[in-house]
Amino acid sequence: MSELTIRPAAEADLPAIIPLLASDPISGDRDDPSLPLDPGYASTFASIAARPDCHLMVADDGGEVVGVFQLTFVPGLIRKGAWRAYVEGVFVRADRRGQGIGARMVAWAADAARAHGGCPFLQLTSNKGRTDAHRFYERLGFQRTSEGLKLLL
Amino acid sequence: MSELTIRPAAEADLPAIIPLLASDPISGDRDDPSLPLDPGYASTFASIAARPDCHLMVADDGGEVVGVFQLTFVPGLIRKGAWRAYVEGVFVRADRRGQGIGARMVAWAADAARAHGGCPFLQLTSNKGRTDAHRFYERLGFQRTSEGLKLLL
Repeated sequence: MSELTIRPAAEADLPAIIPLLASDPISGDRDDPSLPLDPGYASTFASIAARPDCHLMVADDGGEVVGVFQLTFVPGLIRKGAWRAYVEGVFVRADRRGQGIGARMVAWAADAARAHGGCPFLQLTSNKGRTDAHRFYERLGFQRTSEGLKLLL
Repeated sequence: MSELTIRPAAEADLPAIIPLLASDPISGDRDDPSLPLDPGYASTFASIAARPDCHLMVADDGGEVVGVFQLTFVPGLIRKGAWRAYVEGVFVRADRRGQGIGARMVAWAADAARAHGGCPFLQLTSNKGRTDAHRFYERLGFQRTSEGLKLLL
């Protein structure tokens, strides 16, 4: 863990990142880590990389990707023009859970949102079935403020 | 209502938009509609207008702003590179509630997300105290899928 760094993801990291998404017990069946990767991943990676407000980050331990998350800033009028800081897609490799990697990633996101300025909160949504994740975020100081609703299109 | 249109907000609409935010019983005390407006509103309006992924829209009834919302598209890796479509800051003028304006705005957002492509859902978060809003969204087909968590920065 002494070498753990949080750094921007590169396209070459995708083969290491997608298995983290696909191995999730709640949502993993939506993703496919088989190679060659579905071209949608590289296409959206390019869209993320082209947007200064979007930060796809990995936790790198000695050259191995052991976690991933995305931090996105969105301007809004509420609160006299405050910005929203969204954390999305937080995944830690299954064999590396319970070692503080998730907490390091969330702390990085909170620091980045403070450095960005204009963000009163760091916010995220988490599937109602992820009760362990909710407790994890509450231990980090998050409060359950809102209902997250989705309309299938 | 026959003249109701959903159109992009202009900076000149801000003096009509901010009172909708400020009159909200749950969150309105965060905003200030007094003139001249806090410069944060125009500053963030410019940031929104500069971003092709951010759409600040108003419901305009014969030249009067009677509703406002923001639709934002965010690229993400999950679901083979799906995009997220976030609706934020949905407000209808107090004297015009119950007339279908909110439903028209959400339907516009859903149509825009379908037209954008790559968005499996339209999603939003709503303060846990807004029980009427939750019922409203559920009537429109939304499901309460997630917990919304915030960390105060």
